[in-house]
Amino acid sequence: MAATAALRTDDARAPAAPAFPPPPVTARPIDRAAWIAAYRHVRAETERRAAPLSAEDQQVQSMEDASPTKWHRAHVTWFFEQFLLREHLPGYRIHDERLHYLFNSYYVAAGPRQPRTQRGLITRPTLDEVTAYRAHVDRAVEALLGQAADGTLEAVLPILEIGLYHEQQHQELLWTDILHAFAQSPLGPVYDAGWRFPRAVSEPGQVELPRGIARIGHAGDGFSYDNESPRHETLIQPGRIDRGLVTNRDWLAFMADGGYAKPELWLSDGWYASQRDGWEAPGYWRREGGDWATMTLGGLRPIDPDAPVTHVSYYEADAYARWAGRVLPTEFEWETVAAGLPDAFGLVWQWTRSPYVAYPGYRPLPGALGEYNGKFMANQFVLRGSSVATPEGHARLPYRNFFYPHQRWQFTGVRLADPQA
Amino acid sequence: MAATAALRTDDARAPAAPAFPPPPVTARPIDRAAWIAAYRHVRAETERRAAPLSAEDQQVQSMEDASPTKWHRAHVTWFFEQFLLREHLPGYRIHDERLHYLFNSYYVAAGPRQPRTQRGLITRPTLDEVTAYRAHVDRAVEALLGQAADGTLEAVLPILEIGLYHEQQHQELLWTDILHAFAQSPLGPVYDAGWRFPRAVSEPGQVELPRGIARIGHAGDGFSYDNESPRHETLIQPGRIDRGLVTNRDWLAFMADGGYAKPELWLSDGWYASQRDGWEAPGYWRREGGDWATMTLGGLRPIDPDAPVTHVSYYEADAYARWAGRVLPTEFEWETVAAGLPDAFGLVWQWTRSPYVAYPGYRPLPGALGEYNGKFMANQFVLRGSSVATPEGHARLPYRNFFYPHQRWQFTGVRLADPQA
Amino acid sequence: MAATAALRTDDARAPAAPAFPPPPVTARPIDRAAWIAAYRHVRAETERRAAPLSAEDQQVQSMEDASPTKWHRAHVTWFFEQFLLREHLPGYRIHDERLHYLFNSYYVAAGPRQPRTQRGLITRPTLDEVTAYRAHVDRAVEALLGQAADGTLEAVLPILEIGLYHEQQHQELLWTDILHAFAQSPLGPVYDAGWRFPRAVSEPGQVELPRGIARIGHAGDGFSYDNESPRHETLIQPGRIDRGLVTNRDWLAFMADGGYAKPELWLSDGWYASQRDGWEAPGYWRREGGDWATMTLGGLRPIDPDAPVTHVSYYEADAYARWAGRVLPTEFEWETVAAGLPDAFGLVWQWTRSPYVAYPGYRPLPGALGEYNGKFMANQFVLRGSSVATPEGHARLPYRNFFYPHQRWQFTGVRLADPQA
Amino acid sequence: MAATAALRTDDARAPAAPAFPPPPVTARPIDRAAWIAAYRHVRAETERRAAPLSAEDQQVQSMEDASPTKWHRAHVTWFFEQFLLREHLPGYRIHDERLHYLFNSYYVAAGPRQPRTQRGLITRPTLDEVTAYRAHVDRAVEALLGQAADGTLEAVLPILEIGLYHEQQHQELLWTDILHAFAQSPLGPVYDAGWRFPRAVSEPGQVELPRGIARIGHAGDGFSYDNESPRHETLIQPGRIDRGLVTNRDWLAFMADGGYAKPELWLSDGWYASQRDGWEAPGYWRREGGDWATMTLGGLRPIDPDAPVTHVSYYEADAYARWAGRVLPTEFEWETVAAGLPDAFGLVWQWTRSPYVAYPGYRPLPGALGEYNGKFMANQFVLRGSSVATPEGHARLPYRNFFYPHQRWQFTGVRLADPQA
Repeated sequence: MAATAALRTDDARAPAAPAFPPPPVTARPIDRAAWIAAYRHVRAETERRAAPLSAEDQQVQSMEDASPTKWHRAHVTWFFEQFLLREHLPGYRIHDERLHYLFNSYYVAAGPRQPRTQRGLITRPTLDEVTAYRAHVDRAVEALLGQAADGTLEAVLPILEIGLYHEQQHQELLWTDILHAFAQSPLGPVYDAGWRFPRAVSEPGQVELPRGIARIGHAGDGFSYDNESPRHETLIQPGRIDRGLVTNRDWLAFMADGGYAKPELWLSDGWYASQRDGWEAPGYWRREGGDWATMTLGGLRPIDPDAPVTHVSYYEADAYARWAGRVLPTEFEWETVAAGLPDAFGLVWQWTRSPYVAYPGYRPLPGALGEYNGKFMANQFVLRGSSVATPEGHARLPYRNFFYPHQRWQFTGVRLADPQA
Repeated sequence: MAATAALRTDDARAPAAPAFPPPPVTARPIDRAAWIAAYRHVRAETERRAAPLSAEDQQVQSMEDASPTKWHRAHVTWFFEQFLLREHLPGYRIHDERLHYLFNSYYVAAGPRQPRTQRGLITRPTLDEVTAYRAHVDRAVEALLGQAADGTLEAVLPILEIGLYHEQQHQELLWTDILHAFAQSPLGPVYDAGWRFPRAVSEPGQVELPRGIARIGHAGDGFSYDNESPRHETLIQPGRIDRGLVTNRDWLAFMADGGYAKPELWLSDGWYASQRDGWEAPGYWRREGGDWATMTLGGLRPIDPDAPVTHVSYYEADAYARWAGRVLPTEFEWETVAAGLPDAFGLVWQWTRSPYVAYPGYRPLPGALGEYNGKFMANQFVLRGSSVATPEGHARLPYRNFFYPHQRWQFTGVRLADPQA
Repeated sequence: MAATAALRTDDARAPAAPAFPPPPVTARPIDRAAWIAAYRHVRAETERRAAPLSAEDQQVQSMEDASPTKWHRAHVTWFFEQFLLREHLPGYRIHDERLHYLFNSYYVAAGPRQPRTQRGLITRPTLDEVTAYRAHVDRAVEALLGQAADGTLEAVLPILEIGLYHEQQHQELLWTDILHAFAQSPLGPVYDAGWRFPRAVSEPGQVELPRGIARIGHAGDGFSYDNESPRHETLIQPGRIDRGLVTNRDWLAFMADGGYAKPELWLSDGWYASQRDGWEAPGYWRREGGDWATMTLGGLRPIDPDAPVTHVSYYEADAYARWAGRVLPTEFEWETVAAGLPDAFGLVWQWTRSPYVAYPGYRPLPGALGEYNGKFMANQFVLRGSSVATPEGHARLPYRNFFYPHQRWQFTGVRLADPQA
Repeated sequence: MAATAALRTDDARAPAAPAFPPPPVTARPIDRAAWIAAYRHVRAETERRAAPLSAEDQQVQSMEDASPTKWHRAHVTWFFEQFLLREHLPGYRIHDERLHYLFNSYYVAAGPRQPRTQRGLITRPTLDEVTAYRAHVDRAVEALLGQAADGTLEAVLPILEIGLYHEQQHQELLWTDILHAFAQSPLGPVYDAGWRFPRAVSEPGQVELPRGIARIGHAGDGFSYDNESPRHETLIQPGRIDRGLVTNRDWLAFMADGGYAKPELWLSDGWYASQRDGWEAPGYWRREGGDWATMTLGGLRPIDPDAPVTHVSYYEADAYARWAGRVLPTEFEWETVAAGLPDAFGLVWQWTRSPYVAYPGYRPLPGALGEYNGKFMANQFVLRGSSVATPEGHARLPYRNFFYPHQRWQFTGVRLADPQA
């Protein structure tokens, strides 16, 4: 996955064997060193992403959907403290009881919490105090991994693994959220002057979707989220999926044809959103003189016609498909053929036309850890693949991402399909 | 279908052969008398439903989702004028060009229109003028049906048929909308003192859902909406569906167990809606002394424990199912077994867990008439069956109704299912 | 006062002595016939104003600030029942206890009430029932006036008098509210085809304001509102007030000079309101082809350049004055010279630059009847004079009307002044 | 003035002669050293107030009415650059043209600007860059003051003086805004652990207000704001003003008597605000166990019954006065006797019952500098005196402060009066 290569050109220390993902939690004997390496690897990546940001940058919350970098760094740490150390490390000293309220996110079962819209008001604890919090928890987790009895570790590893994937999700959000914040500034701040979007393969042609029963969802003993289960069968209708992603050049043709001004191309809710928010181009696009530019993590850049379009909402993706006389694939169609697609991973998440609902027989995890995926199963659409912002080792074929159809601050793009004529 | 029996006990004039539905539009020779009878039947039913309402009652719009009775009566009339008479009746005189703006609803392709939220402000035309408008259009439609050449009728009948089903949909809304308006009054106005909810069969037990490929969607040459096509195959997972509907007695147990106060039972968006709107019982329920009563078309009535619960949102239905350790059926599961279910029709629409999306290969009708079903394919859930408010002859097995998951002013209820253990 | 002359051309039955205002409440002996005549006169004027309106017209509430005609007719009736009959007429039978909740307006001390924004939802009681309610109360009031002991009448007359002035205020609102409702319709409904705005005298020149101590507020034993007292002294700065009102011709010059597009002319809150609501002309003005027209009680009419401008907010009046290099008068300056001004009464209320606050030593009436004037003494500005909609006999020199500075659905206009150079 | 003494106990370097206010701008010869000293004094006070705050603290904007510390520091600097250096210092190099957009506040005449609600999103320029901006401008201003020809200085000094008073106003806001931000945190952050509220003199008794003509407004050749002119006469009604301020003890009695639950005590708009925002005590009060505590610049502290109540809105002050059977003074009454009142300055701003409007004959300054005071002359009330947050040397007898009646994040308190019986 080429995702973050642009930012890691100086990273000559990368080990031959990747530190992530860790071994399956059921692997025996337990490879403590591998788990400690995986933990350090993930924790370090968070810090690497935060490093270019000042205390002020890390403070800001630019909209309700986004969170401050500092909050991300503390929240993922709180997750380990709350679900792992508090329960499983005898004698663990809570770093600061007051942080519990501030850095819980949505876990109702874990108690009251800072209102989501006011995360940007938390100036105390300071950046340094959050760094100290991270170090405190890191020492405790590593001590636990190094010293706990095997029986304890068997209970601990599944939680640790969730915690690591959870932190990686926030690494992606850290980038998308700071990009949103910077995009609000007329000054076009630069996160990393060397940033560039990975080059898309852009192969022409299509992959055939044969009619038949497909098996969908997580298999094997590796990590998965609860919403990828149970693995089950579904009926695939025949059709074809594009090998390439929709590009900025394609999108400019849609715009030139009045795509944003023709209500007949849009879902009713989408037309309302587009009018309310004044959409006339993908997110972060600005007119600069006669041309279009876009805010990126490298600052304000001219539009690259060959790059995949990104920061488009489901509503825009759907309108584009209708304009093109085509459709978005279902998530099942995507999963069936993705292993053979270039650019399935590492560039842009790909909107599917599948609403985000439970797989047949789905059961959420019990307790607070199960509060996440299941409670959002209404009003959102599934995205598949991964994006340039997704950390290495995080993406997996059956992974189901989901966002509301009006949202566009993620690296979201479009791959088209055709039903059989 | 027992739907409207309660209101028609004195209707001894009902013909032996029902006037609705009309023959298939492809039936030859064209049975003009049958079509005229069907037209008169539908038009008369609208007037029958409006009859107990004063000019003031017919004027009021109690929320954005609802419309005034007078508006319903005029809008369905405008539909015939706009799509049928204007095009197909030579020499037709538009009744009043100014009504076009007022009584177009959402057909963007048909031009600008009165803002939806301001339908309650249209005091002119008056009730009498709307009645005259209806008569003017009725005369013209009947003349067209009686006198047009067969070739013309071949083009006209499909539009007429859509117009009749369209008017029946508004007949259902007429009742749900006036009930909402009356429910806002502290006085509990009575629409029909003789109103009673049809008795549910309430059979215990379940129907088996065998695993297999099912064919779903409209078949044959009868009427259907575009969103019921194309007929296609889907894979049914094994399970069981209840023969009975969830009753008020069941719901009171959910309430007594704190169902409205336990966030872990609710979808995240549902919990937000329930808190914002202060839900603690189904829609229209009021505490009267120590007991619950509910607003009905017969006025304020005590809760009948044996009646099916109604005026519950998708969010509530979903929370109830989770509380009961069960699930809502999919729309495909429902369609597979509904022919064998008592109370599938005529009592309450039944929420399914299927988001409202296109069937594979779906194409909307061209032009303004195709603007309806397709443009709402996001953020809504499918309901199946029909309700006490659905006009006779309107309900059909593959019919797909859809509403937003927070809405509860329709006669919406719950039927539960179980996946195979 | 020429106010309502246009509407009363056929009223040949007008008595030589006006029926309103009634004698002072302290006049002895009590002239029962005069009070009954005054009561009948006021009550009849309400009905006269409602007469051209259908049941539907009388039902509608077009914004939160406005109320339905039916509500006005019932509310003023409730006032007599609540404050006069309930207390002072032995054996009085409340017409319908349920109306109390519906037709109380803002009298917190008189108990809970229908939310202001939902007055348009009250379809029951019907128009006929409200008419019956009025008749029931009329009979009781007249019986009380005719038969009560003198001692009782001494307590009753001050309440009766307030009730009559109160009803007259609602007569004015009845017209302004229905005009607002009709102005929302694209059809431009006509209230009275014979309506015309009274001709302004439009004398040129100014009246001198000499420096000195002026006595301000109510004097004598006639009726007054509590906010006109106590009569007190204030210091008048020297200056001049225009004899004429600002006309539509004047206002068109302001518009032509970009008055609505220059933020430097506007108060900060006013600029915000003008942008939020898209003001580019006075209220109810519409472009018809290349010209301006305006909605009136006579329907849509071309702008008359010689007529006084009306339906302008305080913010607009203030911006206009700044543009003209002049000022609005204070309410004290206005009161000092108004007796010598043409058009002080009967055309448009005149915005003053005086915020609406208490006179020194002001005390509100005790109890619910005192809830009105005092509780609004913040954020509003005083208007003086009266308008074309003010009932005959209602206007008085020290009368203080008040509205929020953004409101413009009343007949509000502008008279300018100059401080001494 | 005892205002900021608590924070300056270690400030042994204070000069014998105060550095502020500077000499009158008309004093000749021009005392360049005194002006440079005044400039340095004011600029240093801003930095002193910002010093305890981290980069994160200085970044946060906790509501629309408040601004970040960093923004305050930059905006007051921009003021000197925009209105003084750009025009009057030949060869001045603009520090960074892009800052103009970010740090303009409301000066429409000075061009477009960062939306007020998004000031908290400006993470770049950083704190250090703002510090550098301040240094750049300081060097230029001091060079101008030291080297410009006398003729130039005559034009410059009036602008400089406005700039210094302007910066002092923002010093006060800096404190009130950071207190508001800290009060949003459940952690109760401490700005200065040594903070204490100055002790009130709390003398009993009253000062007589004799009836008569008083001269009101700015006199002499010292600094004043445009809204204090022209000096003019007004008529004072006889009465008495309290020597003492309303205390927390007094306020607790109001609360204990249900003051926040009795609508009859409140203005209509005030009651609405109190219900919407859930007021049950002054701003920043929190229940801690059975007692009340309040957020202060020293962190969360128990209520001191002897201290003057503060962080109360006009609506609360007015309700309190009505409850006590008394009134707030007018701003003219206050100005007439304030020289003889203890605690007129340095503790809490005192709400008057005077709406904020122009003095007779008022003319705003021309150009952008005149945009401030005049454009807010609607919907606000005048406060007089000064508060604990007001910088030394800033307060003056005729000073007119003004805020909206619902606002309570300033140090606003209450002094009562009685009209003559």
